[in-house]
Amino acid sequence: MAQKPSIPKGTRDFSPVEMARRNYIFDTVKAVFQLYGFQPIETPAMENLSTLMGKYGEEGDKLLFKILNSGDFAAKANEADLADRNSIKLTNQISEKGLRYDLTVPFARFVVQYRNDISFPFKRYQIQPVWRADRPQKGRYREFYQCDVDIVGSDSLLNEFELVQIISDVFTRLRVNTVVKINNRKILAGIAEAIGEADRIVDITVAIDKLDKIGLEKVNEELLEKGVSQDAVDKLQPILKLSGTTDEKLNSIETVIGATEVGKKGIEEVRTFFNYINTVELNTEVELDLTLARGLNYYTGAIFEVKAKDVQIGSICGGGRYDDLTGIFGMPGVSGVGVSFGADRIYDVMTQLELFPEEAVASTKVLFVNFGEKEEAFCLPILRKLRENGVNAEIFPEAAKMKKQMTWADRKNIAWVAVVGEEEMAQGKVNLKNMRSGDQNMVSPDELVKLLTE
Amino acid sequence: MAQKPSIPKGTRDFSPVEMARRNYIFDTVKAVFQLYGFQPIETPAMENLSTLMGKYGEEGDKLLFKILNSGDFAAKANEADLADRNSIKLTNQISEKGLRYDLTVPFARFVVQYRNDISFPFKRYQIQPVWRADRPQKGRYREFYQCDVDIVGSDSLLNEFELVQIISDVFTRLRVNTVVKINNRKILAGIAEAIGEADRIVDITVAIDKLDKIGLEKVNEELLEKGVSQDAVDKLQPILKLSGTTDEKLNSIETVIGATEVGKKGIEEVRTFFNYINTVELNTEVELDLTLARGLNYYTGAIFEVKAKDVQIGSICGGGRYDDLTGIFGMPGVSGVGVSFGADRIYDVMTQLELFPEEAVASTKVLFVNFGEKEEAFCLPILRKLRENGVNAEIFPEAAKMKKQMTWADRKNIAWVAVVGEEEMAQGKVNLKNMRSGDQNMVSPDELVKLLTE
Repeated sequence: MAQKPSIPKGTRDFSPVEMARRNYIFDTVKAVFQLYGFQPIETPAMENLSTLMGKYGEEGDKLLFKILNSGDFAAKANEADLADRNSIKLTNQISEKGLRYDLTVPFARFVVQYRNDISFPFKRYQIQPVWRADRPQKGRYREFYQCDVDIVGSDSLLNEFELVQIISDVFTRLRVNTVVKINNRKILAGIAEAIGEADRIVDITVAIDKLDKIGLEKVNEELLEKGVSQDAVDKLQPILKLSGTTDEKLNSIETVIGATEVGKKGIEEVRTFFNYINTVELNTEVELDLTLARGLNYYTGAIFEVKAKDVQIGSICGGGRYDDLTGIFGMPGVSGVGVSFGADRIYDVMTQLELFPEEAVASTKVLFVNFGEKEEAFCLPILRKLRENGVNAEIFPEAAKMKKQMTWADRKNIAWVAVVGEEEMAQGKVNLKNMRSGDQNMVSPDELVKLLTE
Repeated sequence: MAQKPSIPKGTRDFSPVEMARRNYIFDTVKAVFQLYGFQPIETPAMENLSTLMGKYGEEGDKLLFKILNSGDFAAKANEADLADRNSIKLTNQISEKGLRYDLTVPFARFVVQYRNDISFPFKRYQIQPVWRADRPQKGRYREFYQCDVDIVGSDSLLNEFELVQIISDVFTRLRVNTVVKINNRKILAGIAEAIGEADRIVDITVAIDKLDKIGLEKVNEELLEKGVSQDAVDKLQPILKLSGTTDEKLNSIETVIGATEVGKKGIEEVRTFFNYINTVELNTEVELDLTLARGLNYYTGAIFEVKAKDVQIGSICGGGRYDDLTGIFGMPGVSGVGVSFGADRIYDVMTQLELFPEEAVASTKVLFVNFGEKEEAFCLPILRKLRENGVNAEIFPEAAKMKKQMTWADRKNIAWVAVVGEEEMAQGKVNLKNMRSGDQNMVSPDELVKLLTE
């Protein structure tokens, strides 16, 4: 019986045009990753639930897609839980596997599982879909690609520098104007400690983060409301009024936090990082931004975030340093640093700014119109020649009406159409039409190959 | 608490080397698909179970991985079915989605869903993983990639010809010697009809298929055992003894089945197909093989299968024409033809024959040894220059022992190592070592760039 076909909520099909654009992004990203010596890995879509559960908080556990055990799954379920319809307890009894929720936990699992085969420092990238049973909404999907690049097993700040160069190169190639904002968790910890509020690091960074929106006075009010002492708020003022060059900013911060061990270390790290940045000319602005506090519970050193300058949208790339990626799987002390590119947002930015080059979408260079058997026999060897020379070329598979074939070429965004009828065959030539300009030219097969391979 | 990490049975992680090899295959296949005007699509990993169920037979339904509904899934389950632990009945009550089992059904769903947006004939390729809850065994996985290329909405045999050219080009580029075997379902139907056993087409083709293994006499015995009449077996003899060129074979078959309508059509199709083949020079042998009967319930015209010549292994690519891909989703009469490349088997063949080029595995061209801060400052601008010129290059992220860095380069299969110490810096040069030959040379930064971009 006929069904009206559809796909699950929050999932997407990708058409040829969307695929071409997405591949343009992924191919660019991959080429840059490889330029910096990163290598790809892939992990299975399904992981054991024991690998995934408890890694993303209570909410994350709920958002994992779980795979129903094959066969007679109900046989192993607890009778009382069945009778009570206790979904939470039943889940682990009838399901052993889940779909990956991100690429970080599978990567940590991978590093521990193959620790004896991996040469550390290990520089890997991974571009694969992840699944989350989130409520679908605009720009939020239940299946989406993540695009992660990480170095594990090296504490060197050179790695942070390499990542920022990667970011700069990717967005330069994609022609997206960006600013890279960087911060350091140790500086934030130093601030909290220096003002005598070490436990309130989150409140303090949340307040700093609002500075642009609500202004200094309101930020101070909010801090006091949250229970931060008047003394601490006073000490915080130089940080809130921070301005100037990176060096000036670092000097100001130092007056506040230079006496704390963690703060001192943070300033040293940021200085070293900017020393690296100054050794080369980057196309991308790199800015110290103390309001940057993403993933605060996770990151232990550098924090990165990339903003598109010409479009109002959340960050299009972000990451940082974490000091214990693999501890949860029994391999403590492996430090790592990495960033993740947000393919969907980059796609939206590039669509909005019309940054996809036409070549990225057109896959075929020339279409041979099909007039029938005799003409086919003339065209097929030429077609073969073109393909042997690496030209993406096709022939309409049947002798349909000319108009249908031209419309088809047009919808497929094909730049050239080769028309061969009685006259052309008599002359041993091809009538080549440029679909953009409308220009037509009679050319020999050899000239055709030359023209289209130029 | 530390867990010993592992992945689900029948799934795989792919290491950088495996990824590089797999990508070498996928990139080759994609480049050829695009050479022939095919465009990529992607569909979600999860489909509605209503889309998947009933499409792969009863066994297939069992092998689908089903996703447990999110939230309080047990709330909707039938009380009696819960009490009875009736897994079969409960499945549909607690699960609405499944992982795709192949790319064909999602493609059919796609074509119907976007029928108004698609310009037919629609030439698409799709390379994505599929999941099957099969018992894992050597060479059979629960997650594996399929790599499908199809044209839908065109009856022309030119499409069959294009597909065979694609097969030839792919395996030529991969340097795998192959033979393409072709058959036509209409010829098999003609044979069954001509010998008066139209209902026994499967028995007859199964018997023909065994000819090589068990010989003519045993095949005849088996046919009689299965209830095929002596008269029919007698009539079948010219087919069983078939030999000679394609033309000779077709002529022999014609004497047996030329009088049946379907048989006549089948012979005509195969002749037209070989006429196309003869217009160009292919690197790959194409052979008419009447014993080819794969997917007999599915294919309606041409049937293809590709065998590697130098390795004993099942078919590495196969496909055929189907007359009603989309009928099940309410869009009858859409004919299509396509083939599927078996990435895992191609990988095994190429590994066995050592056909992966070294470049396919080495991702980085040059490693800069890291001796510390001063040397870094000298190397970083050179490194940047190399990368700007498209050379995959990296620097070891910390000043580790020389031996460790060299071993690391070696394990990463890096061809060149640049060593810069006091002496090199004094001369403004780089000591470049070829890791294969052991040769060393002092070169200027400009010479280095020139040498590695050649």
